[in-house]
Amino acid sequence: MRPVSRVRRLAAIAALTLVGGALVSAQPVSGRRRVSLVVTGGIVVTQNAARQVLNPGAIAVDGRDIVAVDTPESIGARFTAGETIDARGQIVLPGLINTHTHAPMVMYRGLADDLALMDWLQKYIFPAEAKTVSPEMVRIGTRLAVLEMIESGTTTYADMYYFEEEIAKATREAGLRGVLGQTIIQFPVADAKTPAEALARAEVYIKTFKNDPLIVPAVAPHALYTLDQESLLASVALARKYDVPIIIHLAETRDEVDVARTEHKATPVGYLESIGFWGPRTLAAHGVWVADEDIEVLKRRQVGIAHNPESNMKLASGAAPVVKYLAAGVAVGLGTDGAASNNDLDMFEAMRQAAFLAKIVNRDPTAVPAQAALDMATIGGARALNMEAAIGSVEPGKRADLITVSTSASRHTPLYEAISHLVYVARGDDVRTTIVHGKVLMKDRQVRTLNRASVIADAQKLSDSVRRAIR
Amino acid sequence: MRPVSRVRRLAAIAALTLVGGALVSAQPVSGRRRVSLVVTGGIVVTQNAARQVLNPGAIAVDGRDIVAVDTPESIGARFTAGETIDARGQIVLPGLINTHTHAPMVMYRGLADDLALMDWLQKYIFPAEAKTVSPEMVRIGTRLAVLEMIESGTTTYADMYYFEEEIAKATREAGLRGVLGQTIIQFPVADAKTPAEALARAEVYIKTFKNDPLIVPAVAPHALYTLDQESLLASVALARKYDVPIIIHLAETRDEVDVARTEHKATPVGYLESIGFWGPRTLAAHGVWVADEDIEVLKRRQVGIAHNPESNMKLASGAAPVVKYLAAGVAVGLGTDGAASNNDLDMFEAMRQAAFLAKIVNRDPTAVPAQAALDMATIGGARALNMEAAIGSVEPGKRADLITVSTSASRHTPLYEAISHLVYVARGDDVRTTIVHGKVLMKDRQVRTLNRASVIADAQKLSDSVRRAIR
Repeated sequence: MRPVSRVRRLAAIAALTLVGGALVSAQPVSGRRRVSLVVTGGIVVTQNAARQVLNPGAIAVDGRDIVAVDTPESIGARFTAGETIDARGQIVLPGLINTHTHAPMVMYRGLADDLALMDWLQKYIFPAEAKTVSPEMVRIGTRLAVLEMIESGTTTYADMYYFEEEIAKATREAGLRGVLGQTIIQFPVADAKTPAEALARAEVYIKTFKNDPLIVPAVAPHALYTLDQESLLASVALARKYDVPIIIHLAETRDEVDVARTEHKATPVGYLESIGFWGPRTLAAHGVWVADEDIEVLKRRQVGIAHNPESNMKLASGAAPVVKYLAAGVAVGLGTDGAASNNDLDMFEAMRQAAFLAKIVNRDPTAVPAQAALDMATIGGARALNMEAAIGSVEPGKRADLITVSTSASRHTPLYEAISHLVYVARGDDVRTTIVHGKVLMKDRQVRTLNRASVIADAQKLSDSVRRAIR
Repeated sequence: MRPVSRVRRLAAIAALTLVGGALVSAQPVSGRRRVSLVVTGGIVVTQNAARQVLNPGAIAVDGRDIVAVDTPESIGARFTAGETIDARGQIVLPGLINTHTHAPMVMYRGLADDLALMDWLQKYIFPAEAKTVSPEMVRIGTRLAVLEMIESGTTTYADMYYFEEEIAKATREAGLRGVLGQTIIQFPVADAKTPAEALARAEVYIKTFKNDPLIVPAVAPHALYTLDQESLLASVALARKYDVPIIIHLAETRDEVDVARTEHKATPVGYLESIGFWGPRTLAAHGVWVADEDIEVLKRRQVGIAHNPESNMKLASGAAPVVKYLAAGVAVGLGTDGAASNNDLDMFEAMRQAAFLAKIVNRDPTAVPAQAALDMATIGGARALNMEAAIGSVEPGKRADLITVSTSASRHTPLYEAISHLVYVARGDDVRTTIVHGKVLMKDRQVRTLNRASVIADAQKLSDSVRRAIR
């Protein structure tokens, strides 16, 4: 087979592929080194700085880390592996990074659709949450969500919900990587009656998970319209005290812009800038209604954006200025948002929607090409989470967070261009293997870290109480 | 399990479900009648006039036709079947109707993306077509396309391409239903040097397939900007002579509006109205740039619209006024368009996009709710093709064109509302069974009418010549 790549770049990529040695870590080789895992024979989409594609390629993993990326012959000559994954007929790429969701909300998936936002929240979601959010619901919902994520190729996700310590425990048990934010909100919710109580809970949670290899604890002030200035700043202070990320909803709807104008005589970005909220470890979800001058603020403050095209379309929130963000150098990741508003956690669909939405709203078919969509779902998401040194591409020294995608479906035939298929044809069900931190969580669609049947049975049982809650 | 339905309609649906007898054909029953096929135990989404959902339900099929729809107990008591399909854990619904594609263009899938329309056509698609379209390419491409359609739940499709008789043969062999239009175009193409030659070819083709139980031959004048008035009217005359449908591209891009204005001092709809083009057996694909007064013309002339949300987004063509079409009572079906511009033939994605696109462009989350999207993909498509007496819903007396959709994926858990999952969660790969004209084309994802491996191998082999053609 010849290298699969964008046709007009064939020659350039072919030339790059020949210098595979340049991709390998500097470690001197004498005899065959024993490593824990080799993935070999697939089309390796590295997402490194050169966006190199190896066809075929192979990856050597030792423990948590990628140690080499090269041709199958070279990897085979230099390494012996405890476990080998044959990726022939598959595309191998960095695990996808979902930069915004509310994992346990899979329990409310499809509960109510096609409603105005306030009807949806006030008649269905808030009543369901008031009656059903508990540590047990969060555990059961998170297990279902991480099962779906492992099965659809997400290896890292950013979350904001209640009882976040339960989410962290379930995520760690399943072996997934998470940036998981404890919600701070002004009104009483299931896990805290006041912002102060939520902050105290967040502090305990941060201390518990601060040095976890998979979990990055975070503080998640919900939004500027659900928190007063004191609580926003207390959230920032707590995050800075422990050097953990902050996650906030930003300018998702036009209503939020109106609130900021009326109450603070500023844009949402401008108001948060005026109180000293922004910092380099802040992730802002949505960022739909953001003016050009505010994009400059976000760039200057190194804020990451979690773009949620499906949720923004389904709830008719609007279209984030993604092309402008990217042009300004703002780090943009992709998110699915919670499954109550999407209705699934499939990051392949998020990629496709990011491309489709940008094209239609900009009236430009060249906007957000496939490579840009894939970038947002991988290295862009890593940058938005300040984790690009560890994840987001297949490179020696980074964590071994990898997925393999089957191209055997009739809809993947023929295959001229791997990146095109990943964005415009693939879906989560095509994922065969999911590896996080060097550990194989799913192989040949068999999830190893969760009891699939009991996860689904628990969720189905719990769904009866959700149904009753909205009667 | 209780009836699965939109929550606020629970009571109404539950009441309807109790009067299952009303759904059954009037045929008197004495003893158990022998029929060819029973599908039983699933959630049956009938798409009948009442949009009745039976949970659980069962369907008796004899030969090509549905003979009864009722509870599993009632069907079991009244019929014995040659073949029984156990649909427990699945949703059973009318086969999906793809009202616009160019089947063999699966061979150009992903060949070039993210380009301006004219670059895409002139640098990639036209050169590839000039060098590769042949009866053999059309055969191989169509077999791949119908494989993908069977595997993703499409049971009827409308097509427009070259060598349409080859498409008809391959479609009939695979057992799929097709409304298949021979292209008439002003410039020389692979199967005809002139419109006159194309019309002569179309006439032979129509005579060959006029009385086929699965194939409806059609005349497909390509577009107003690729045909002169004489050829447009000759196409209409031929179609009327044989009482077959006409398929045309209509107002897909703003360029077409400019052409019509410049050359004909009219809108595209207005120009075609002025020359007497429109009639009740006309299917217009896209209909993006259509003004309010033109919608009235389309309604009056009983023109069907094939809405292609994915293609229109990916190519940045624009957003068809679907909400207005539906409000005016225009028959609207959904299409995928050719796989060169989509890039697959998955009608579940088309449903999801129809909902998303309408919501975002109308800034209204209630626009095109799930039920409306499902309607367009089933009974709406049947109306657009003037085939609503035969297909588009699960009702006694209609053809047995049925699919079953698995809900066992983690992303389908929990299941509160079947219609929501069909539109916002399901994808073609969830389809387990595809039945057309009473014949089981796929069961448990095993396609019975095509040799899957050889279809894919043939397409892969042919793809080498496509690659060479665009070098």
